[in-house]
Amino acid sequence: MNQQQLEDLVAAYRILAEHGVIDAYGHVSLRSPDNPNRFFLARAIAPQTVQLEDILEYDLDSKPIDPKGRDSVNERFIHSEIYRARPDVMSVVHNHSPSVVPFSVTGVKLRALFHMASFIGVEGLPNFEIRKVKKGSDLLVRTPELGKALAKTLGKAPASLMRGHGSVTVGENIQRSVGRSVYLEMSAIMQMQALALSKKITWFDAAEVKASAPVQDYKRAWPLWREKALAQAEADRK
Amino acid sequence: MNQQQLEDLVAAYRILAEHGVIDAYGHVSLRSPDNPNRFFLARAIAPQTVQLEDILEYDLDSKPIDPKGRDSVNERFIHSEIYRARPDVMSVVHNHSPSVVPFSVTGVKLRALFHMASFIGVEGLPNFEIRKVKKGSDLLVRTPELGKALAKTLGKAPASLMRGHGSVTVGENIQRSVGRSVYLEMSAIMQMQALALSKKITWFDAAEVKASAPVQDYKRAWPLWREKALAQAEADRK
Amino acid sequence: MNQQQLEDLVAAYRILAEHGVIDAYGHVSLRSPDNPNRFFLARAIAPQTVQLEDILEYDLDSKPIDPKGRDSVNERFIHSEIYRARPDVMSVVHNHSPSVVPFSVTGVKLRALFHMASFIGVEGLPNFEIRKVKKGSDLLVRTPELGKALAKTLGKAPASLMRGHGSVTVGENIQRSVGRSVYLEMSAIMQMQALALSKKITWFDAAEVKASAPVQDYKRAWPLWREKALAQAEADRK
Amino acid sequence: MNQQQLEDLVAAYRILAEHGVIDAYGHVSLRSPDNPNRFFLARAIAPQTVQLEDILEYDLDSKPIDPKGRDSVNERFIHSEIYRARPDVMSVVHNHSPSVVPFSVTGVKLRALFHMASFIGVEGLPNFEIRKVKKGSDLLVRTPELGKALAKTLGKAPASLMRGHGSVTVGENIQRSVGRSVYLEMSAIMQMQALALSKKITWFDAAEVKASAPVQDYKRAWPLWREKALAQAEADRK
Repeated sequence: MNQQQLEDLVAAYRILAEHGVIDAYGHVSLRSPDNPNRFFLARAIAPQTVQLEDILEYDLDSKPIDPKGRDSVNERFIHSEIYRARPDVMSVVHNHSPSVVPFSVTGVKLRALFHMASFIGVEGLPNFEIRKVKKGSDLLVRTPELGKALAKTLGKAPASLMRGHGSVTVGENIQRSVGRSVYLEMSAIMQMQALALSKKITWFDAAEVKASAPVQDYKRAWPLWREKALAQAEADRK
Repeated sequence: MNQQQLEDLVAAYRILAEHGVIDAYGHVSLRSPDNPNRFFLARAIAPQTVQLEDILEYDLDSKPIDPKGRDSVNERFIHSEIYRARPDVMSVVHNHSPSVVPFSVTGVKLRALFHMASFIGVEGLPNFEIRKVKKGSDLLVRTPELGKALAKTLGKAPASLMRGHGSVTVGENIQRSVGRSVYLEMSAIMQMQALALSKKITWFDAAEVKASAPVQDYKRAWPLWREKALAQAEADRK
Repeated sequence: MNQQQLEDLVAAYRILAEHGVIDAYGHVSLRSPDNPNRFFLARAIAPQTVQLEDILEYDLDSKPIDPKGRDSVNERFIHSEIYRARPDVMSVVHNHSPSVVPFSVTGVKLRALFHMASFIGVEGLPNFEIRKVKKGSDLLVRTPELGKALAKTLGKAPASLMRGHGSVTVGENIQRSVGRSVYLEMSAIMQMQALALSKKITWFDAAEVKASAPVQDYKRAWPLWREKALAQAEADRK
Repeated sequence: MNQQQLEDLVAAYRILAEHGVIDAYGHVSLRSPDNPNRFFLARAIAPQTVQLEDILEYDLDSKPIDPKGRDSVNERFIHSEIYRARPDVMSVVHNHSPSVVPFSVTGVKLRALFHMASFIGVEGLPNFEIRKVKKGSDLLVRTPELGKALAKTLGKAPASLMRGHGSVTVGENIQRSVGRSVYLEMSAIMQMQALALSKKITWFDAAEVKASAPVQDYKRAWPLWREKALAQAEADRK
C-alpha cells in the first residue's frame, strides 16, 4: 500500500462526508493491493477528521495488525466478511445514506432509473434484514457471523441496503465504491420523486444496465473530489 | 460546574444551530452537576452567537441566581419543570426542528425506524397539546403551570413533540439530548419519505429498541461537533 | 431616514437572500420615517450585492426623487401602492419564495400551523391572480394599476401570494416584513409535509393566532441576522 | 471570440455547478460569434475546476480545431448537432439537473407554472427517449447520429429532457441557456410540490408564456453570478 493509495482512502472518508452520504458513523475500506487477506480502515473516529495516521491495517478476521492503541470500529466485520466472500471487491463503503433508509424499511425496491446509478440493476438491490439472523439486535454488524450473513445477502450485487440502518456499496476500486455511494443517494431521491409523480416509470432495461456500467467509473469526478478532500485534510492539520 | 461543562453547553447551542435543528429561538440546558436543584441556560440570545458569558444559572423555579442584567428566555419553565419531574435528566433541548412540526399537527405518530433514532421507541413519542391546558395561548411555555403540563406529557419518554411549535428532547447527559435532537429531525424526514413510499413499514420492535439504546450515545460524533463549535465561538470573538 | 435605518434596509436584502427567500429578483422597501409619502428601495440590482449607495428614495407614484442615473426595479409599484393603501405598513418585501409558489398555483390555502408563522391566520392568505386584472401579462406588477389591484387583494392581510410568481409580505417595521418572509417559506414547507401525512391537521384557532402575534416580532433573530449581513456587505466592499 | 466571451463560458461552468444543476459531468458551450460553424466547449474535466485554458474550439463535426493533447467530452455531439439544426441557438447546456430526471422517466410533462421558467411553454418540453434510436445504449449521446436524434426531439423548443439522464437547454445567448437551466430545476421542484398538493393547477396560458419571454433574460442575475464565479476561478489558480 503506497502513499497515494492511503491518501485515496483518507480522501474517500472526507468525500463521503462532504456529500452527506456518511455522517459521524460511516466508514470506507480498501483491500491491500499487496495482500488480498488484508485491508485498511480508519479507527473509530468521525469521518470528516480522518488523517493518514488514523488508518489501521486488518486481517480477514478483522484483527488489527498493529492496533496502535486505537479503538477499532465495531462494524469492521462488514468489511472483512465481504472481502472474504467477494475476491473481486477491492473497496467497501458502509453508510447511513439518508434517502436509502426509507427504501430499506418498506417493501419498495430501489431500481435503476438514472444513468449515473444504473449499477442498481434491473432486479434492484438486496436488503439485509438482520432480524432473520439475530432477533433483538442493536442492528450493528458487530460479529463475524453477522458480517457473513450480510455478505450472503449482498451476493454478487454492487450494493445492499441494510434495514433501518443504511447500506453497503462495493467496487473493484475505491472510485467505484465511493462514487456508487454518492449516486445511490441521488438515485434514491429521484426514485422517491418519480414514484410520487407516477406509478409508471421507465426503468433501465438489462441491455442499458450492462452498456452503462463502464461509464460509471466516476473518473471525471474523482480527481476533483480527491484534491478538495486532501486540501481540507491538510488545512485541518494546522 | 467546571469550564469543560460550560464549554459543552456553549458547544451544544452552536451544534444544534449548525445542524438546522434550532433556529434563532431554540435553547439547551444542563443540570448542575454540583446541585440537582440548579441548571444552566443561555440568556435570551440567538443560539449561533452564544458565548461562555451568556450562560446563566437558574433554580428549579426558573429564577436566575445572578441575572447579570440579562433577559432570560420566556420558555425557561420547560427546563425547570422537566428537571423537577425527571431526576434522571441532566440536559434538556427545546427546538423548532422543522421536520418534526408536521407530525405535531397531524395524528401521525413518530415511530422508530432508523437505528440512530430508535430511542423514539415502539410506542412513539407523546405530543403536547397546549390547548388542553390553556385555550387561546401563544403556544409558548411561559409559566410553571405550562412547564408542569409539558413535563407530564413527556412522562418517562426521551422526547415530546409540541403541537404547532416544535419539540423537547432530554438525556442523562448533554451528548444524548443534543444527539437525539439531531437524529430526531433526520428520522422524521425518513419517516415522511417511507410513508410516501408505502404504508407497510418495518418499525423497530421492542427488543431492538432496547438493544440499540446504548449505541445512541453519539460519542463518536460529539468530539467532532464540539471542536468545530468551539473553534467557531473563538473565531466569533475576534 | 438615519444611517441605522438605511443599514437595516441593506441588511434586509442580504438576510432574505441568505435565507433563500429571494433570489436575484426580490426586493424590500422601507417607508420613510420622516415622510409617509416616501419610501426607500434598492435600484435594479441582485439583492446579495446591495450596498448603501444602491438605495434610492421614491414618492408614492414610484418616481425616484433622485434617480442618480440608476435603473429602478420594474415592480416598484408593488411598494408604492401598498404604502398608499396601508398606512400601517412601514416595510414591504416582494419575493419568489420557492415553497410558496406551489400554493399560489393550486387552490390550496396556506393556513397557520406553526407558531413562528401564525400571522398567516385562520382564514389563510389571499392569492393575487393577475389574470383577473390583465390577461396575457408577463405577471410583473409593472404599472400603478397592477400595484393597486395587488394592494386590493392584500387588503388588511400581512401577506399575499402572487399566482405563478411569488408573494408579498408587509409589516409595521422591517423586522416583521423580513421575518414574515423567512417564516412564511418555512411554514409552507411544513404545510406541504403535513398535508402529505394526513388530511386532518390541527390549525391555529383564532384565539391562538391573536395571542401569538406579539411573539412574532423576530427580535431575537434580527440582531444576529443584521450583524452577519452587514459584515458581509463590508467584506464585499474590499 | 474575445476574452470577455471566453470568461463568460468559464463562468457558466462554475455558475451551473454552484447552483447544483451540473455535477461532475455536465457541460456548456458557446457558438463562436466569429464563425457559426465553430463552438467552444471545455475539455473533459469537472465543471467546478474549468479555467480559460481548458476551453477548446470545435467544428460542427465535433472535431477539436486544436486538441492541445486534451480529452474531449464524449457527448460533444449534443452541442454540434444542435448548433447545426438550430441557427438561432448560440449556447447549449447539458446537465443532470436532479429534479428534472423524475419527469424524464414518467409520462408527466414539465409545464410552465412559474414566471422565471415560463419558457417551458404551454405544451411543455419534449423528452428524448434514446431507446427509440438505439436499443441497449449507455444513454450517452456519443455519436453524430444520436446528436441528430436529440436535436430532432428538441425541435424548436428551448429545452428537452433526456430520459433517465438529464436535460439540454439552449438559448440565443449564454445568459439564457444558463439561466434556463437554473430555473428549470427550480420549476421542476415547484411542479412536483404543486402536483402533490392538487391535481388542479393554474398553468401559464399561451399569452402569458409569450409576454413573459423577454423578462427571462436573467440579466439581473448574470453579473452577480459571473463575478462570483470568476473570483472563484481566480482563487482556485492560487
